[in-house]
Parts: sequence; C-alpha cells; structure tokens
Amino acid sequence: MRADAKKNRDHLLVVAGTAIAEQGADVSLRDIARQAEVGLTTLLRHFPTREALLDALLRTSFDELATKAGELEMSNSPEDALLTWLRDCVACATEFRGVTTLMAAAIEDTDSALHDSCVTMRAAGARLLIRAQDVGIARTDLDGTDLFALVAALAWLGDQASLASRADHLFDVVSSAILVKAGS
Amino acid sequence: MRADAKKNRDHLLVVAGTAIAEQGADVSLRDIARQAEVGLTTLLRHFPTREALLDALLRTSFDELATKAGELEMSNSPEDALLTWLRDCVACATEFRGVTTLMAAAIEDTDSALHDSCVTMRAAGARLLIRAQDVGIARTDLDGTDLFALVAALAWLGDQASLASRADHLFDVVSSAILVKAGS
Repeated sequence: MRADAKKNRDHLLVVAGTAIAEQGADVSLRDIARQAEVGLTTLLRHFPTREALLDALLRTSFDELATKAGELEMSNSPEDALLTWLRDCVACATEFRGVTTLMAAAIEDTDSALHDSCVTMRAAGARLLIRAQDVGIARTDLDGTDLFALVAALAWLGDQASLASRADHLFDVVSSAILVKAGS
Repeated sequence: MRADAKKNRDHLLVVAGTAIAEQGADVSLRDIARQAEVGLTTLLRHFPTREALLDALLRTSFDELATKAGELEMSNSPEDALLTWLRDCVACATEFRGVTTLMAAAIEDTDSALHDSCVTMRAAGARLLIRAQDVGIARTDLDGTDLFALVAALAWLGDQASLASRADHLFDVVSSAILVKAGS
C-alpha cells in the first residue's frame, strides 16, 4: 500500500470510529467519507462494505481482548480472569453503538468480514470459562457460545439509552449466574 | 367508529401482526396496507405512526400478561408465578421480531405510544418480584426496571438467528440469578 493510501486508510478508521461511537453502526458511509475529506469511492476502495469497515475497527479491539485473555489466564485467579475479561468484552462491544446485532449475526455467518474476529473472541472466552469450570467455580452447562451470547445481550442493554444505567448492575447479576456459589 | 372502519382496523392489525412476525418491526407500512388491500392513507388514519400500530398490536398481548400476572399471584407459589410470567414475557417480546429495541426506548419515553403498555408490564412484573422477595426467594437488589431490562435482553437474544437456539437455556441461567438459591 502506498504511503498516502495507508494514511487515507488510517484517517478513515479514526473518523469512522468516532462517527460510529457517536451515531451508531448504521452511520452513513457518505458522511464518514465527507468528514475524512475523501470521496465515497476512496472509502469503498479501502472498505468495500460496512462490515469490512467495522471489522477493521473491531479487529484491533478483539485482538487486544484475545491477547488480554491469554495474559489473564497466566496471572489471575480463574474467577478474576473470567470476570475481568467479560467486563472488558461488554465494554468493547458497547463502545461501538449498534454493533451487537452485527456481532450476533457474524458469529454464524462465515461470509461476514466480522466472522473471524467473533470466532477468535468466542474461543478466548471459552478457554477462560473452561479454566474456571475445571476448578469448580463456573457452571458446567455453559460453553463459549453461551458466554458470547450473554456478552452480546449485556452489551445490547448498555446500548439502550433507557436501560444503560442498569447495565453495570445487571452485569453483576448475570455474572453471579455464571459463577457457582461456594457450597452450592 | 363505523362498522366498516372497525373492520378495516381489525383486518390491518391481523395483517400487520403476521407481517411483523415474518419480517420484523421495520416492515414497510406500504406493504402492510397493500396486503390488507387498503390505501396507505387509510392505514395512517388508523395508525398515524409505526409505534401506534405496534402499540395496538402489543397492547392486547401486554394486557393479557398483566391479567395473567394477577392470576399467577393468586394461584401459584411466588417462585413459580415469577418464572412462568417472565417466560411468557420473553416469548411475547420475541414474537414481534425487532420490537425489543422499541420497547427499551418506550419505557422512558412518555411520548411513545408504547409507553403505557411498557409501564403496565413493568409494574406487573415488579409486583411478582416483590412477592418473591418478601418470602426470601428472589434477590433483593433487583426492581421492576431491572426485570424489564433482563426480559428485553433475553427477548433480544431470542431475536438473533445465530443465538436463538441458546435463548431457552440462557433464560434458565438468568432466572437462576434472579432467584436466591436455598441456603445461600
């Protein structure tokens, strides 16, 4: 990629990240191009579809989450690692308003540009979940897909203006369901 | 309302209910009018906005849920009443594809035609929750809005094709968080 093309691409990603955080994932691509001061054709050359643009944005975040899962696995207790990671995932998915519905669709859609990122994220969560299950502190009737679904549902809640104030509390409630209470 | 106007209205509701269940809450009003064999102007005379149409459809279901909450309160154990009612609410909200986001917005938006129905539903749930809390079998740090949010999040999950197969299981997981385990 030529240096000015790379510069255009990076600039588009920064503008798109801000626009999506402010206006949601269905923000107009034409508006993003205008704000980035390039033509729509240029935007579409870098990102042929909305999903490709979201994927580029989310891939960095998801890769960081996968790396963090590995670090937590090495250094934290199974319970703390799982809870910290789940909280980070919900925060990440909430950050891009409106993306939860796309994420939910992408996990099963191998044609989606978001598919690989979602599968990587689910696998990272599954490893932390299995580690917690192995030491008997997490429900054994959950798998990586259940965890992914709960993260998506909690991120969706955080995305609804009227219910967002309850999202943190309900994260704790749902977490308490994932973890097995001592002695139960 | 004249007899033929009432007939048009009832027919529009039946057609709209089917169209929304099949195509989601953002189905075209023009298509609904066409299928009902009336003009768009006639549809808009009965239902000036999409929310007014959804409200008319949902009001019946929500009124039934409120009535059922009263019946369950009289005849069932607090735990059974709460769980049965929550399951019915999620099923009702899932039935109209795509309506969960509208519901979440309507609970705080007094201008929404759906507002009253959502408030009635939340109040009915709150009564069942308080009854369960009073006998010590439900978490005391939840209120009607938390319950409404959890129902909406579970209905949203049931609405995502890729995650819908997990919805029933995750309903059980989340329910177990609402209820206090014996001895804990």
